[in-house]
Amino acid sequence: MPESMTMFRLEGLPDFQQGDDLAQVIIDTFQAQQKALVAGDILVIAHKVVSKSEGACAYLDQITPSADAIELAKTVNKDPRKVEVILFQSKRIVRAVKRPDQQEGVLIAEHKNGYICANAAVDESNADHPGQLILLPENPDRSAQLLCQRLEAHFQCDLGIVISDTFGRPWRLGQTNVAIGLANVPGVMKMEGEMDAFGRPLSVTAPAFADELAAASGLLMEKSAKAPVIVFRGLDWPKTDSQSRDLIRAQNEDLFK
Amino acid sequence: MPESMTMFRLEGLPDFQQGDDLAQVIIDTFQAQQKALVAGDILVIAHKVVSKSEGACAYLDQITPSADAIELAKTVNKDPRKVEVILFQSKRIVRAVKRPDQQEGVLIAEHKNGYICANAAVDESNADHPGQLILLPENPDRSAQLLCQRLEAHFQCDLGIVISDTFGRPWRLGQTNVAIGLANVPGVMKMEGEMDAFGRPLSVTAPAFADELAAASGLLMEKSAKAPVIVFRGLDWPKTDSQSRDLIRAQNEDLFK
Repeated sequence: MPESMTMFRLEGLPDFQQGDDLAQVIIDTFQAQQKALVAGDILVIAHKVVSKSEGACAYLDQITPSADAIELAKTVNKDPRKVEVILFQSKRIVRAVKRPDQQEGVLIAEHKNGYICANAAVDESNADHPGQLILLPENPDRSAQLLCQRLEAHFQCDLGIVISDTFGRPWRLGQTNVAIGLANVPGVMKMEGEMDAFGRPLSVTAPAFADELAAASGLLMEKSAKAPVIVFRGLDWPKTDSQSRDLIRAQNEDLFK
Repeated sequence: MPESMTMFRLEGLPDFQQGDDLAQVIIDTFQAQQKALVAGDILVIAHKVVSKSEGACAYLDQITPSADAIELAKTVNKDPRKVEVILFQSKRIVRAVKRPDQQEGVLIAEHKNGYICANAAVDESNADHPGQLILLPENPDRSAQLLCQRLEAHFQCDLGIVISDTFGRPWRLGQTNVAIGLANVPGVMKMEGEMDAFGRPLSVTAPAFADELAAASGLLMEKSAKAPVIVFRGLDWPKTDSQSRDLIRAQNEDLFK
Protein backbone atom coordinates (compact mmCIF):
# COMPACT_ATOMS: atom_id res chain seq x y z
CA MET A 1 0.00 0.00 0.00
CA PRO A 2 1.48 3.35 -1.01
CA GLU A 3 2.42 5.93 1.62
CA SER A 4 0.83 8.84 -0.16
CA MET A 5 -1.46 9.79 -3.00
CA THR A 6 -2.69 12.91 -4.75
CA MET A 7 -6.06 13.96 -6.05
CA PHE A 8 -6.64 16.69 -8.57
CA ARG A 9 -9.56 18.17 -10.42
CA LEU A 10 -9.64 18.41 -14.19
CA GLU A 11 -10.31 22.09 -14.85
CA GLY A 12 -11.73 23.62 -17.98
CA LEU A 13 -14.44 21.13 -18.90
CA PRO A 14 -17.36 22.61 -20.83
CA ASP A 15 -21.08 22.03 -20.26
CA PHE A 16 -22.25 18.82 -21.83
CA GLN A 17 -25.14 18.23 -24.22
CA GLN A 18 -26.67 15.08 -25.67
CA GLY A 19 -24.38 13.68 -28.34
CA ASP A 20 -21.16 15.12 -26.96
CA ASP A 21 -18.22 12.71 -27.10
CA LEU A 22 -17.34 12.72 -23.41
CA ALA A 23 -14.14 10.68 -23.85
CA GLN A 24 -12.83 13.04 -26.55
CA VAL A 25 -13.73 16.13 -24.54
CA ILE A 26 -11.87 14.75 -21.51
CA ILE A 27 -8.84 13.91 -23.68
CA ASP A 28 -8.88 17.36 -25.28
CA THR A 29 -9.20 19.03 -21.90
CA PHE A 30 -6.22 17.14 -20.51
CA GLN A 31 -4.24 18.20 -23.56
CA ALA A 32 -5.32 21.82 -23.20
CA GLN A 33 -4.16 21.71 -19.58
CA GLN A 34 -0.90 20.05 -20.67
CA LYS A 35 -1.69 17.12 -18.42
CA ALA A 36 -1.78 13.40 -19.10
CA LEU A 37 -3.08 10.34 -17.33
CA VAL A 38 -0.54 7.77 -16.16
CA ALA A 39 -0.78 4.06 -15.36
CA GLY A 40 -2.91 3.35 -12.31
CA ASP A 41 -4.77 6.67 -12.34
CA ILE A 42 -8.41 6.43 -11.35
CA LEU A 43 -10.97 8.99 -12.49
CA VAL A 44 -14.09 9.61 -10.46
CA ILE A 45 -16.65 11.19 -12.76
CA ALA A 46 -19.92 12.75 -11.60
CA HIS A 47 -22.68 10.92 -13.46
CA LYS A 48 -24.34 14.11 -14.60
CA VAL A 49 -21.86 14.70 -17.41
CA VAL A 50 -22.25 11.09 -18.50
CA SER A 51 -26.04 11.33 -18.33
CA LYS A 52 -26.14 14.60 -20.23
CA SER A 53 -23.83 13.46 -23.02
CA GLU A 54 -25.82 10.22 -23.34
CA GLY A 55 -29.13 12.09 -23.27
CA ALA A 56 -30.28 10.31 -20.10
CA CYS A 57 -32.71 13.08 -19.32
CA ALA A 58 -36.47 13.51 -19.10
CA TYR A 59 -38.51 16.61 -19.90
CA LEU A 60 -41.55 17.47 -17.79
CA ASP A 61 -43.47 18.89 -20.77
CA GLN A 62 -43.29 15.47 -22.47
CA ILE A 63 -44.60 13.48 -19.49
CA THR A 64 -48.20 12.43 -18.83
CA PRO A 65 -48.47 11.21 -15.25
CA SER A 66 -50.27 7.97 -14.47
CA ALA A 67 -53.01 7.74 -11.85
CA ASP A 68 -50.48 6.15 -9.45
CA ALA A 69 -48.08 9.02 -9.95
CA ILE A 70 -50.81 11.60 -9.38
CA GLU A 71 -51.83 9.90 -6.15
CA LEU A 72 -48.27 9.51 -4.84
CA ALA A 73 -47.43 13.08 -5.82
CA LYS A 74 -50.05 14.37 -3.38
CA THR A 75 -48.37 12.69 -0.39
CA VAL A 76 -45.02 14.40 -1.05
CA ASN A 77 -46.17 17.56 -2.82
CA LYS A 78 -44.20 16.85 -5.96
CA ASP A 79 -45.05 17.55 -9.58
CA PRO A 80 -46.92 14.36 -10.67
CA ARG A 81 -44.89 14.30 -13.89
CA LYS A 82 -41.68 14.16 -11.84
CA VAL A 83 -43.18 11.33 -9.78
CA GLU A 84 -44.01 9.53 -13.02
CA VAL A 85 -40.35 9.71 -14.03
CA ILE A 86 -39.24 8.51 -10.58
CA LEU A 87 -41.62 5.54 -10.78
CA PHE A 88 -40.32 4.70 -14.25
CA GLN A 89 -36.76 4.66 -12.91
CA SER A 90 -37.66 2.52 -9.88
CA LYS A 91 -38.20 -1.10 -8.96
CA ARG A 92 -40.12 -0.04 -5.87
CA ILE A 93 -40.78 2.90 -3.61
CA VAL A 94 -39.27 2.18 -0.19
CA ARG A 95 -40.81 5.17 1.55
CA ALA A 96 -42.62 8.41 0.75
CA VAL A 97 -41.95 11.20 3.23
CA LYS A 98 -42.72 14.86 3.58
CA ARG A 99 -41.75 16.52 6.85
CA PRO A 100 -43.81 19.53 7.94
CA ASP A 101 -40.85 21.85 7.29
CA GLN A 102 -40.37 20.58 3.75
CA GLN A 103 -41.95 22.30 0.76
CA GLU A 104 -41.45 19.15 -1.28
CA GLY A 105 -40.96 15.67 0.17
CA VAL A 106 -38.84 12.79 -0.97
CA LEU A 107 -39.45 9.32 -2.40
CA ILE A 108 -36.86 6.83 -1.19
CA ALA A 109 -36.74 4.36 -4.06
CA GLU A 110 -34.94 1.28 -5.23
CA HIS A 111 -33.60 2.34 -8.61
CA LYS A 112 -34.02 -0.26 -11.35
CA ASN A 113 -30.24 -0.83 -11.15
CA GLY A 114 -30.51 -1.69 -7.45
CA TYR A 115 -29.31 1.47 -5.68
CA ILE A 116 -31.55 2.70 -2.88
CA CYS A 117 -31.60 6.47 -2.95
CA ALA A 118 -33.72 9.59 -2.89
CA ASN A 119 -36.11 10.04 -5.83
CA ALA A 120 -34.50 7.19 -7.79
CA ALA A 121 -31.61 9.61 -8.46
CA VAL A 122 -33.87 11.77 -10.65
CA ASP A 123 -32.41 15.23 -10.25
CA GLU A 124 -33.13 18.82 -11.19
CA SER A 125 -29.94 20.39 -9.89
CA ASN A 126 -27.45 21.25 -12.62
CA ALA A 127 -30.06 20.61 -15.28
CA ASP A 128 -29.67 22.92 -18.25
CA HIS A 129 -33.10 24.47 -17.91
CA PRO A 130 -36.24 24.20 -15.77
CA GLY A 131 -38.27 21.16 -16.69
CA GLN A 132 -35.25 19.01 -17.51
CA LEU A 133 -34.64 16.09 -15.18
CA ILE A 134 -31.29 14.31 -15.18
CA LEU A 135 -31.48 10.54 -14.81
CA LEU A 136 -28.75 8.00 -14.17
CA PRO A 137 -27.05 6.66 -17.31
CA GLU A 138 -28.94 3.67 -18.70
CA ASN A 139 -26.04 1.31 -17.90
CA PRO A 140 -23.41 3.13 -15.83
CA ASP A 141 -20.94 0.20 -15.82
CA ARG A 142 -21.09 0.06 -19.61
CA SER A 143 -20.62 3.83 -19.78
CA ALA A 144 -17.60 3.60 -17.47
CA GLN A 145 -16.09 0.75 -19.42
CA LEU A 146 -16.49 2.40 -22.84
CA LEU A 147 -15.03 5.63 -21.53
CA CYS A 148 -12.16 3.76 -19.88
CA GLN A 149 -11.31 1.92 -23.10
CA ARG A 150 -11.13 5.21 -24.98
CA LEU A 151 -8.92 6.85 -22.37
CA GLU A 152 -6.66 3.79 -22.07
CA ALA A 153 -6.24 3.70 -25.85
CA HIS A 154 -5.31 7.37 -25.92
CA PHE A 155 -3.04 7.50 -22.88
CA GLN A 156 -1.63 4.01 -23.52
CA CYS A 157 -1.88 2.79 -19.93
CA ASP A 158 -4.18 0.96 -17.50
CA LEU A 159 -6.75 3.24 -15.91
CA GLY A 160 -9.81 2.94 -13.69
CA ILE A 161 -13.11 4.81 -13.72
CA VAL A 162 -15.77 5.27 -11.07
CA ILE A 163 -18.98 7.01 -12.07
CA SER A 164 -20.48 8.63 -8.98
CA ASP A 165 -23.71 10.06 -7.69
CA THR A 166 -24.43 11.93 -4.47
CA PHE A 167 -26.57 9.97 -2.01
CA GLY A 168 -27.94 10.62 1.45
CA ARG A 169 -27.40 7.92 4.06
CA PRO A 170 -29.57 6.23 6.64
CA TRP A 171 -28.78 7.36 10.21
CA ARG A 172 -26.17 9.89 9.18
CA LEU A 173 -26.63 13.47 8.02
CA GLY A 174 -25.12 15.00 4.93
CA GLN A 175 -24.45 13.39 1.61
CA THR A 176 -21.47 11.54 0.18
CA ASN A 177 -20.67 10.46 -3.34
CA VAL A 178 -21.03 6.74 -4.00
CA ALA A 179 -19.99 4.55 -6.91
CA ILE A 180 -22.75 3.75 -9.42
CA GLY A 181 -20.61 2.63 -12.36
CA LEU A 182 -17.23 0.89 -12.44
CA ALA A 183 -14.51 0.15 -14.96
CA ASN A 184 -11.54 -1.91 -13.74
CA VAL A 185 -11.82 -0.54 -10.19
CA PRO A 186 -12.81 -3.11 -7.53
CA GLY A 187 -16.07 -2.27 -5.78
CA VAL A 188 -15.10 -3.99 -2.56
CA MET A 189 -11.55 -5.07 -1.72
CA LYS A 190 -11.53 -8.66 -0.57
CA MET A 191 -9.24 -9.06 2.41
CA GLU A 192 -10.23 -12.57 3.46
CA GLY A 193 -7.21 -14.55 4.43
CA GLU A 194 -5.15 -11.50 5.31
CA MET A 195 -4.12 -10.96 8.89
CA ASP A 196 -4.48 -7.91 11.08
CA ALA A 197 -1.42 -6.22 12.55
CA PHE A 198 -1.43 -8.83 15.33
CA GLY A 199 -1.67 -11.87 13.08
CA ARG A 200 -5.37 -12.64 13.48
CA PRO A 201 -7.51 -13.22 10.38
CA LEU A 202 -9.27 -10.11 9.08
CA SER A 203 -12.26 -12.17 8.09
CA VAL A 204 -14.88 -9.43 7.97
CA THR A 205 -12.81 -6.58 6.58
CA ALA A 206 -13.85 -5.65 3.07
CA PRO A 207 -13.21 -1.98 2.34
CA ALA A 208 -15.69 -0.51 -0.13
CA PHE A 209 -12.83 0.75 -2.30
CA ALA A 210 -14.95 2.34 -5.05
CA ASP A 211 -17.12 4.11 -2.49
CA GLU A 212 -14.02 5.35 -0.65
CA LEU A 213 -12.86 6.88 -3.94
CA ALA A 214 -16.28 8.35 -4.66
CA ALA A 215 -16.58 9.85 -1.17
CA ALA A 216 -13.04 11.26 -1.40
CA SER A 217 -13.86 12.91 -4.73
CA GLY A 218 -16.40 15.07 -2.91
CA LEU A 219 -13.49 16.87 -1.21
CA LEU A 220 -12.64 18.47 -4.57
CA MET A 221 -15.92 18.12 -6.47
CA GLU A 222 -18.07 21.02 -5.40
CA LYS A 223 -21.43 20.97 -7.11
CA SER A 224 -21.24 24.63 -7.81
CA ALA A 225 -17.76 24.37 -9.32
CA LYS A 226 -18.60 22.50 -12.53
CA ALA A 227 -15.83 20.04 -11.64
CA PRO A 228 -17.12 16.62 -12.52
CA VAL A 229 -13.78 14.83 -13.07
CA ILE A 230 -11.38 14.08 -10.21
CA VAL A 231 -8.15 12.13 -10.76
CA PHE A 232 -6.59 9.90 -8.08
CA ARG A 233 -2.89 9.24 -8.57
CA GLY A 234 -0.55 7.01 -6.63
CA LEU A 235 -2.85 4.26 -5.39
CA ASP A 236 -1.99 0.61 -5.76
CA TRP A 237 -5.08 -1.39 -6.81
CA PRO A 238 -5.85 -4.62 -8.63
CA LYS A 239 -7.45 -4.21 -12.07
CA THR A 240 -10.70 -6.12 -11.72
CA ASP A 241 -13.64 -7.14 -13.86
CA SER A 242 -16.03 -5.29 -11.58
CA GLN A 243 -19.58 -4.01 -11.69
CA SER A 244 -21.45 -1.52 -9.56
CA ARG A 245 -23.74 -4.23 -8.30
CA ASP A 246 -20.71 -5.66 -6.44
CA LEU A 247 -21.50 -2.88 -3.97
CA ILE A 248 -25.18 -3.63 -3.55
CA ARG A 249 -26.24 -5.67 -0.57
CA ALA A 250 -28.87 -8.32 -1.32
CA GLN A 251 -32.11 -7.32 0.34
CA ASN A 252 -32.25 -10.56 2.34
CA GLU A 253 -28.73 -9.90 3.65
CA ASP A 254 -29.40 -6.41 4.86
CA LEU A 255 -28.66 -6.52 8.59
CA PHE A 256 -29.41 -2.87 9.07
CA LYS A 257 -32.94 -2.53 7.83
CA MET B 1 -11.97 25.17 -3.47
CA PRO B 2 -8.44 23.94 -4.16
CA GLU B 3 -7.60 22.16 -7.40
CA SER B 4 -5.60 19.39 -5.75
CA MET B 5 -4.75 17.84 -2.42
CA THR B 6 -2.43 15.20 -1.07
CA MET B 7 -2.88 12.50 1.54
CA PHE B 8 -0.05 10.71 3.31
CA ARG B 9 0.30 8.14 6.00
CA LEU B 10 2.38 8.76 9.11
CA GLU B 11 4.79 5.84 9.17
CA GLY B 12 6.66 4.50 12.16
CA LEU B 13 4.02 4.69 14.88
CA PRO B 14 4.45 2.12 17.67
CA ASP B 15 1.75 -0.05 19.22
CA PHE B 16 -0.19 1.82 21.86
CA GLN B 17 -0.88 0.86 25.48
CA GLN B 18 -3.06 2.43 28.15
CA GLY B 19 -1.37 5.52 29.50
CA ASP B 20 0.61 6.32 26.35
CA ASP B 21 0.70 10.02 25.49
CA LEU B 22 -0.75 9.78 21.98
CA ALA B 23 -0.14 13.46 21.15
CA GLN B 24 3.52 13.24 22.16
CA VAL B 25 4.05 9.98 20.28
CA ILE B 26 2.56 11.53 17.13
CA ILE B 27 4.77 14.63 17.54
CA ASP B 28 7.87 12.48 18.11
CA THR B 29 7.04 10.32 15.10
CA PHE B 30 6.67 13.36 12.84
CA GLN B 31 10.03 14.58 14.07
CA ALA B 32 11.67 11.19 13.53
CA GLN B 33 10.33 11.24 9.97
CA GLN B 34 11.55 14.83 9.55
CA LYS B 35 8.03 15.90 8.76
CA ALA B 36 5.86 18.65 10.19
CA LEU B 37 2.21 19.58 10.09
CA VAL B 38 1.27 22.83 8.40
CA ALA B 39 -1.72 25.15 8.69
CA GLY B 40 -4.91 23.55 7.44
CA ASP B 41 -3.71 19.96 7.70
CA ILE B 42 -6.37 17.51 8.82
CA LEU B 43 -5.46 14.24 10.53
CA VAL B 44 -7.80 11.28 10.32
CA ILE B 45 -6.94 8.96 13.20
CA ALA B 46 -8.27 5.42 13.59
CA HIS B 47 -10.01 5.32 16.96
CA LYS B 48 -8.20 2.18 18.05
CA VAL B 49 -5.01 4.03 18.95
CA VAL B 50 -7.05 6.62 20.85
CA SER B 51 -9.03 3.89 22.63
CA LYS B 52 -5.92 1.90 23.51
CA SER B 53 -3.98 4.86 24.86
CA GLU B 54 -7.02 5.95 26.89
CA GLY B 55 -7.62 2.40 28.13
CA ALA B 56 -11.08 2.23 26.52
CA CYS B 57 -10.98 -1.55 26.52
CA ALA B 58 -12.82 -4.40 28.22
CA TYR B 59 -11.46 -7.80 29.24
CA LEU B 60 -13.63 -10.88 28.88
CA ASP B 61 -12.20 -12.51 32.02
CA GLN B 62 -13.46 -9.57 34.09
CA ILE B 63 -17.05 -9.66 32.77
CA THR B 64 -20.02 -11.44 34.34
CA PRO B 65 -22.84 -11.54 31.80
CA SER B 66 -26.37 -10.58 32.79
CA ALA B 67 -29.37 -12.83 32.13
CA ASP B 68 -30.30 -10.54 29.20
CA ALA B 69 -26.83 -10.90 27.71
CA ILE B 70 -26.90 -14.69 28.07
CA GLU B 71 -30.26 -14.85 26.32
CA LEU B 72 -29.28 -12.51 23.49
CA ALA B 73 -25.95 -14.32 23.04
CA LYS B 74 -27.79 -17.50 22.10
CA THR B 75 -29.56 -15.84 19.16
CA VAL B 76 -26.27 -14.71 17.58
CA ASN B 77 -23.87 -17.36 18.92
CA LYS B 78 -21.64 -14.83 20.63
CA ASP B 79 -19.75 -15.09 23.92
CA PRO B 80 -22.29 -13.81 26.49
CA ARG B 81 -19.57 -11.69 28.10
CA LYS B 82 -19.00 -9.94 24.78
CA VAL B 83 -22.75 -9.36 24.49
CA GLU B 84 -22.71 -7.89 28.01
CA VAL B 85 -20.07 -5.37 26.90
CA ILE B 86 -22.06 -4.56 23.74
CA LEU B 87 -25.21 -3.96 25.81
CA PHE B 88 -23.26 -1.72 28.19
CA GLN B 89 -22.05 0.37 25.23
CA SER B 90 -25.54 0.63 23.68
CA LYS B 91 -28.70 2.66 24.02
CA ARG B 92 -30.64 -0.06 22.23
CA ILE B 93 -30.23 -3.10 20.05
CA VAL B 94 -31.67 -2.36 16.60
CA ARG B 95 -31.45 -5.89 15.30
CA ALA B 96 -29.86 -9.25 16.18
CA VAL B 97 -28.94 -11.36 13.15
CA LYS B 98 -27.13 -14.57 12.46
CA ARG B 99 -27.20 -15.84 8.89
CA PRO B 100 -26.88 -19.60 8.38
CA ASP B 101 -23.42 -19.15 6.85
CA GLN B 102 -22.15 -17.15 9.81
CA GLN B 103 -20.30 -18.75 12.72
CA GLU B 104 -21.06 -15.72 14.85
CA GLY B 105 -23.86 -13.23 14.19
CA VAL B 106 -24.03 -9.50 14.65
CA LEU B 107 -25.90 -7.10 16.92
CA ILE B 108 -26.78 -3.89 15.13
CA ALA B 109 -26.83 -1.40 17.99
CA GLU B 110 -27.30 2.28 18.69
CA HIS B 111 -24.12 3.16 20.56
CA LYS B 112 -24.63 5.37 23.63
CA ASN B 113 -23.07 8.23 21.61
CA GLY B 114 -25.72 7.82 18.90
CA TYR B 115 -23.90 5.96 16.11
CA ILE B 116 -25.75 2.98 14.68
CA CYS B 117 -23.24 0.26 13.93
CA ALA B 118 -22.36 -3.41 14.28
CA ASN B 119 -21.83 -4.66 17.85
CA ALA B 120 -21.82 -1.10 19.26
CA ALA B 121 -18.30 -0.78 17.78
CA VAL B 122 -16.96 -3.34 20.28
CA ASP B 123 -14.09 -4.94 18.41
CA GLU B 124 -11.61 -7.75 18.77
CA SER B 125 -9.54 -7.05 15.67
CA ASN B 126 -6.21 -5.40 16.44
CA ALA B 127 -6.66 -6.09 20.15
CA ASP B 128 -3.36 -6.81 21.87
CA HIS B 129 -4.35 -10.28 23.00
CA PRO B 130 -7.35 -12.63 22.95
CA GLY B 131 -9.98 -11.61 25.46
CA GLN B 132 -9.36 -7.90 25.03
CA LEU B 133 -12.17 -5.90 23.44
CA ILE B 134 -11.53 -2.43 22.09
CA LEU B 135 -14.33 0.08 22.73
CA LEU B 136 -14.86 3.55 21.34
CA PRO B 137 -13.17 6.32 23.34
CA GLU B 138 -15.44 7.53 26.16
CA ASN B 139 -15.86 10.96 24.51
CA PRO B 140 -14.33 10.94 21.02
CA ASP B 141 -14.94 14.66 20.40
CA ARG B 142 -13.14 15.52 23.63
CA SER B 143 -10.29 13.16 22.68
CA ALA B 144 -10.02 14.80 19.26
CA GLN B 145 -10.08 18.29 20.73
CA LEU B 146 -7.42 17.61 23.38
CA LEU B 147 -5.18 15.97 20.82
CA CYS B 148 -5.73 18.83 18.38
CA GLN B 149 -4.83 21.43 21.02
CA ARG B 150 -1.56 19.63 21.74
CA LEU B 151 -0.66 19.32 18.07
CA GLU B 152 -1.61 22.94 17.33
CA ALA B 153 0.54 24.13 20.25
CA HIS B 154 3.51 22.15 19.00
CA PHE B 155 3.23 22.87 15.30
CA GLN B 156 2.01 26.45 15.86
CA CYS B 157 -0.79 26.35 13.33
CA ASP B 158 -4.50 25.60 12.92
CA LEU B 159 -5.21 21.90 12.44
CA GLY B 160 -8.21 19.61 12.27
CA ILE B 161 -8.74 16.10 13.58
CA VAL B 162 -11.26 13.41 12.66
CA ILE B 163 -11.32 10.24 14.77
CA SER B 164 -12.67 7.41 12.64
CA ASP B 165 -14.13 3.95 12.94
CA THR B 166 -14.95 1.42 10.24
CA PHE B 167 -18.70 0.87 9.75
CA GLY B 168 -20.82 -1.29 7.49
CA ARG B 169 -23.65 0.41 5.64
CA PRO B 170 -27.31 -0.38 5.02
CA TRP B 171 -27.97 -1.45 1.42
CA ARG B 172 -24.35 -1.30 0.34
CA LEU B 173 -21.62 -3.92 0.71
CA GLY B 174 -18.19 -3.32 2.15
CA GLN B 175 -17.15 -0.98 4.90
CA THR B 176 -16.04 2.62 4.95
CA ASN B 177 -14.49 4.72 7.68
CA VAL B 178 -16.80 7.28 9.25
CA ALA B 179 -16.18 10.19 11.60
CA ILE B 180 -16.90 9.50 15.27
CA GLY B 181 -14.95 12.37 16.83
CA LEU B 182 -14.23 15.87 15.54
CA ALA B 183 -11.94 18.75 16.36
CA ASN B 184 -12.34 21.93 14.29
CA VAL B 185 -13.43 19.98 11.19
CA PRO B 186 -17.04 20.56 10.07
CA GLY B 187 -19.15 17.43 10.17
CA VAL B 188 -21.45 18.59 7.39
CA MET B 189 -20.68 21.51 5.08
CA LYS B 190 -23.65 23.85 4.93
CA MET B 191 -24.23 24.97 1.38
CA GLU B 192 -27.63 26.60 1.79
CA GLY B 193 -27.80 29.80 -0.10
CA GLU B 194 -25.15 28.78 -2.58
CA MET B 195 -26.05 28.29 -6.21
CA ASP B 196 -25.34 25.38 -8.50
CA ALA B 197 -23.36 25.85 -11.70
CA PHE B 198 -26.55 27.08 -13.41
CA GLY B 199 -27.52 29.59 -10.73
CA ARG B 200 -30.24 27.58 -8.98
CA PRO B 201 -30.16 27.32 -5.17
CA LEU B 202 -28.37 24.20 -3.88
CA SER B 203 -30.87 23.90 -1.07
CA VAL B 204 -30.40 20.25 -0.22
CA THR B 205 -26.67 19.90 -0.80
CA ALA B 206 -24.80 19.32 2.44
CA PRO B 207 -21.63 17.29 1.89
CA ALA B 208 -20.73 15.15 4.89
CA PHE B 209 -17.22 16.62 4.91
CA ALA B 210 -15.88 14.70 7.93
CA ASP B 211 -17.21 11.41 6.55
CA GLU B 212 -15.69 12.20 3.15
CA LEU B 213 -12.33 12.58 4.91
CA ALA B 214 -12.83 9.44 6.95
CA ALA B 215 -13.81 7.38 3.91
CA ALA B 216 -10.85 8.76 1.93
CA SER B 217 -8.47 7.79 4.74
CA GLY B 218 -9.34 4.16 4.08
CA LEU B 219 -7.49 4.42 0.77
CA LEU B 220 -4.20 4.59 2.72
CA MET B 221 -5.22 3.09 6.08
CA GLU B 222 -5.03 -0.63 5.66
CA LYS B 223 -6.00 -2.43 8.85
CA SER B 224 -3.07 -4.77 8.53
CA ALA B 225 -0.62 -1.95 7.99
CA LYS B 226 -0.60 -0.45 11.49
CA ALA B 227 -1.21 2.90 9.86
CA PRO B 228 -3.72 4.72 12.02
CA VAL B 229 -2.81 8.33 11.14
CA ILE B 230 -3.50 9.81 7.70
CA VAL B 231 -2.76 13.47 6.91
CA PHE B 232 -4.79 15.50 4.39
CA ARG B 233 -2.97 18.52 3.01
CA GLY B 234 -4.20 21.23 0.70
CA LEU B 235 -7.90 21.41 1.50
CA ASP B 236 -9.68 24.67 2.18
CA TRP B 237 -12.10 24.30 5.11
CA PRO B 238 -13.72 26.51 7.72
CA LYS B 239 -12.52 25.92 11.30
CA THR B 240 -15.72 25.05 13.10
CA ASP B 241 -16.87 24.30 16.63
CA SER B 242 -18.11 20.88 15.58
CA GLN B 243 -19.13 17.64 17.24
CA SER B 244 -19.58 14.16 15.88
CA ARG B 245 -23.30 14.30 16.65
CA ASP B 246 -23.57 16.91 13.86
CA LEU B 247 -23.44 13.86 11.59
CA ILE B 248 -26.15 11.87 13.34
CA ARG B 249 -29.63 11.95 11.87
CA ALA B 250 -32.40 12.28 14.46
CA GLN B 251 -34.36 9.05 14.55
CA ASN B 252 -37.61 10.80 13.70
CA GLU B 253 -35.96 12.39 10.65
CA ASP B 254 -34.63 9.18 9.20
CA LEU B 255 -36.26 8.92 5.80
CA PHE B 256 -34.49 5.68 4.97
CA LYS B 257 -35.53 3.39 7.80
